[in-house]
Amino acid sequence: MPELPEQIRELLASGLGVDRAPGPPGPISQVELPEARVPRDAAEALRAIVGPDAVLDDQEARVRHTRGKSTPDLLRLRAGDAASAPDLVLLPGSHDEVLAVLRACSERRVAVVPFGGGSSVVGGLEPEAGGFAGLIALDLRRMNALLALDEVSRAATLEPGLRGPQAEALLAERGYTIGHFPQSFEYATLGGFAAARSSGQASAGYGRFDELVLAMRVAAPAGELTLGRAPKSAAGPDLRQLMLGSEGAFGVITSLSVAVRPVPEVRVYEGWRLPSFQDGVAVLRRLAQDGPLPTVLRLSDETETALNLARPGEIGSGGGGGSEGCLAIVGYEGTESDVDARRARATRVLSDMGAAEQPGAGGSWERDRYRGPYLRDALLDAGALVETLETVSFWSALPGLYDEVSVALRRSLTEQGTPPVVLCHVSHVYPSGASLYFTVASAQADDPVAQWRVAKAAASDAIRTAGGSITHHHGVGIDHRDWYAREIGQLGIDVLRAVKATLDPAGIMNPGVLLPLR
Amino acid sequence: MPELPEQIRELLASGLGVDRAPGPPGPISQVELPEARVPRDAAEALRAIVGPDAVLDDQEARVRHTRGKSTPDLLRLRAGDAASAPDLVLLPGSHDEVLAVLRACSERRVAVVPFGGGSSVVGGLEPEAGGFAGLIALDLRRMNALLALDEVSRAATLEPGLRGPQAEALLAERGYTIGHFPQSFEYATLGGFAAARSSGQASAGYGRFDELVLAMRVAAPAGELTLGRAPKSAAGPDLRQLMLGSEGAFGVITSLSVAVRPVPEVRVYEGWRLPSFQDGVAVLRRLAQDGPLPTVLRLSDETETALNLARPGEIGSGGGGGSEGCLAIVGYEGTESDVDARRARATRVLSDMGAAEQPGAGGSWERDRYRGPYLRDALLDAGALVETLETVSFWSALPGLYDEVSVALRRSLTEQGTPPVVLCHVSHVYPSGASLYFTVASAQADDPVAQWRVAKAAASDAIRTAGGSITHHHGVGIDHRDWYAREIGQLGIDVLRAVKATLDPAGIMNPGVLLPLR
Repeated sequence: MPELPEQIRELLASGLGVDRAPGPPGPISQVELPEARVPRDAAEALRAIVGPDAVLDDQEARVRHTRGKSTPDLLRLRAGDAASAPDLVLLPGSHDEVLAVLRACSERRVAVVPFGGGSSVVGGLEPEAGGFAGLIALDLRRMNALLALDEVSRAATLEPGLRGPQAEALLAERGYTIGHFPQSFEYATLGGFAAARSSGQASAGYGRFDELVLAMRVAAPAGELTLGRAPKSAAGPDLRQLMLGSEGAFGVITSLSVAVRPVPEVRVYEGWRLPSFQDGVAVLRRLAQDGPLPTVLRLSDETETALNLARPGEIGSGGGGGSEGCLAIVGYEGTESDVDARRARATRVLSDMGAAEQPGAGGSWERDRYRGPYLRDALLDAGALVETLETVSFWSALPGLYDEVSVALRRSLTEQGTPPVVLCHVSHVYPSGASLYFTVASAQADDPVAQWRVAKAAASDAIRTAGGSITHHHGVGIDHRDWYAREIGQLGIDVLRAVKATLDPAGIMNPGVLLPLR
Repeated sequence: MPELPEQIRELLASGLGVDRAPGPPGPISQVELPEARVPRDAAEALRAIVGPDAVLDDQEARVRHTRGKSTPDLLRLRAGDAASAPDLVLLPGSHDEVLAVLRACSERRVAVVPFGGGSSVVGGLEPEAGGFAGLIALDLRRMNALLALDEVSRAATLEPGLRGPQAEALLAERGYTIGHFPQSFEYATLGGFAAARSSGQASAGYGRFDELVLAMRVAAPAGELTLGRAPKSAAGPDLRQLMLGSEGAFGVITSLSVAVRPVPEVRVYEGWRLPSFQDGVAVLRRLAQDGPLPTVLRLSDETETALNLARPGEIGSGGGGGSEGCLAIVGYEGTESDVDARRARATRVLSDMGAAEQPGAGGSWERDRYRGPYLRDALLDAGALVETLETVSFWSALPGLYDEVSVALRRSLTEQGTPPVVLCHVSHVYPSGASLYFTVASAQADDPVAQWRVAKAAASDAIRTAGGSITHHHGVGIDHRDWYAREIGQLGIDVLRAVKATLDPAGIMNPGVLLPLR
């Protein structure tokens, strides 16, 4: 775990009023686990399906499969609270085993939480299992094969338990990449990317994960689905798009075919300085609408630029190159000729619209691109509350969305006696809109979980009022459920309930995630 | 209606053995209509909702709303058979009227067929209404407004009854285009494009219609849905993709927001000659996977090239420029600099891969791009059976799909004593696959409807065996229903039935279309 530089500690004290450091969490052995409830005969049945070595019930396995990686998740575990821990952790090895496990659990009303990288930050791993006969975590890590590579169609069929780097390594041996690099890349799995509609840092170039999925096999308590006979089709509603984003509440994706591309010959990441966030948004919109679209496109607002959080490795090191205006990261990946062509045209657009190149910033971003989340533990130890949230809207709503969410976060935390710093960046663009990603830091209050809950609700209300969607790429989980229900309306919820009732008649799949229990 | 050139008549006689001409169909007044069944009180209730002028029950209105535009549809109407005619044609003027009509029909078990341009070629307008208290056609032509244009987000909100040219004219006044130009463009409506997952001739550049829809409002018997707060979101499954392709079986799209672009400064369409279909497919794949992607990309096989059906206006005129190899149409639309950049790079790819420019072919294609279907009536008059079907697969399956469907069509029609000519083109490409569009012509047998049914079933079985999807852009309707059910499996059908039961509890919406009646 990275240590916090002294300058950051000073910044926390002087800037946010952090005046006490709770220190690091205790050992896993001190976490209090709920008593396991899965009946003995059910446990035996599950052991018979996956084999005894693939069933874990020790303290460490249970704690490590408790909830995800949101700040409240970390805070509750630090406080010794593992109330949501699964009774058993199962490691199935195949589609057929998953199918048999789900059937057995359905018959016995044992709840199931599908578990990939455990990196949910929205409560996607915290099912409401109280009314069930127990809870098992279905950890898919053993399902980690590259099943097939169709080089003609540029499609790879992979198992869902592959973590980002594992999948990329298997494909790189054959000369291919998926190009999906979210901040959770090092831990999260392909199944998780699909189930939660992940979007990576290079989404402008490679697409969102839901756009990359060409086909999938799904195991559900009621049976199985095999979806995707072609890239696109007019054969009815696109059922792939019904499973993408289902967050384990409908079934388990047991294999998926994703679009791959040749490993790029060239990767170039540049920093560009814009006079203001507004100017930067105009440039991003221009590139998204009229092209050429870079592979990576990211714009920090003035505060994030000043605090240099676009390059977290340099926080406080003074290497940020000044604090005026806004920093954009613009990256190109592809063949040399493709990169040259796009870069030349995009550079003209950037220059014409008032951007100035910022030497070194692209390289710093590349070096630290996955590092952000790892600082968080050190910041929590030091007494800071740090959390992120994100949204997306059409371009015309974006300025209002930015203002209202910023104001809501500042107001809520200030009213709680802990005035925050609020940073924001745009990291995913479309012809018709873009995402906003906020980072918030303040001093921890006495009950930091409650403190954040209040601030998050204020921000979520502001997102709703300002016309954004409650999440661009984190998902719904438990945390966004109420706002999600308002977003799609009661009839939309009823439709999804009907789908769930068909695939999961006993309601055992991640109960309470995505859709409220009845 | 265009007349058939004498050369075509000779070709039909010598090439296909056409030896009798049924001649043109009789007048609409001779078509036999089923007795109207909608109860008087239901008709009164509907009149009260939409107003008396918006309810039609005359012979012409009923016949003109009977079925769609497939060859069997035309043949049955020619034979005086209008068994599927609606009892009443309603012309609602607003979302609220549609909602009220659907509620009233649901209460009274009156079936409803939503009607846009009437251009379905898969039985999408032929609901199985026998078990209901009657059938009304909901013709959306009065809902034809441009409701809003968001120039910042490049999104237009439009009503569903707008035909292609009406929508383009409204947008052109403001400098924008949707860029969706299917062969049905002149008749089909925006609501139909959405409900049937249409794909236009410029799909490589502008995207499929299901990719262009950003938001929508839906009226269903159970209530309404408002979907799409952002271009993309991780807030659960994408419910837009559940309504797109629902073919009127779930509800009626009463407004939709679609992506628009500035009217292109430049449009260039070129013809390129490839040595073989296989060589042409390799070029299309290369452009789809490595770019640059033209706006229009279409490749005729050897037979279609020889018969010059890529330019139907010139059939038999000798202007096809020879009959060797395969003709590709490559089009570019956009700003001058964008078109120049893409065209220069694509031209290099085409030349490097053995393509030779064919002067004049691009212009001919542009002139005749919507003309194909209009020849069909003249061909039917002359005693030919002409029909089209289409499919899509991943690239690796495409050669087998092409062979198996061609063989199945030839074998089936030859076995029936009417050896056909089978033409094919690729007109929609993706990085991972492409569509195949077949045109079949033979002499009419004694019962041409049954003749085509047998051939179509053979082709559909071949599509299934060879790994294609049963439709790339025509939709499911009644005609593809059985193959569609095999494509998504029983559990997939159960999921869609559950969705339908939620939105349409009485099952009145286009019954039997998309999903079989229970």
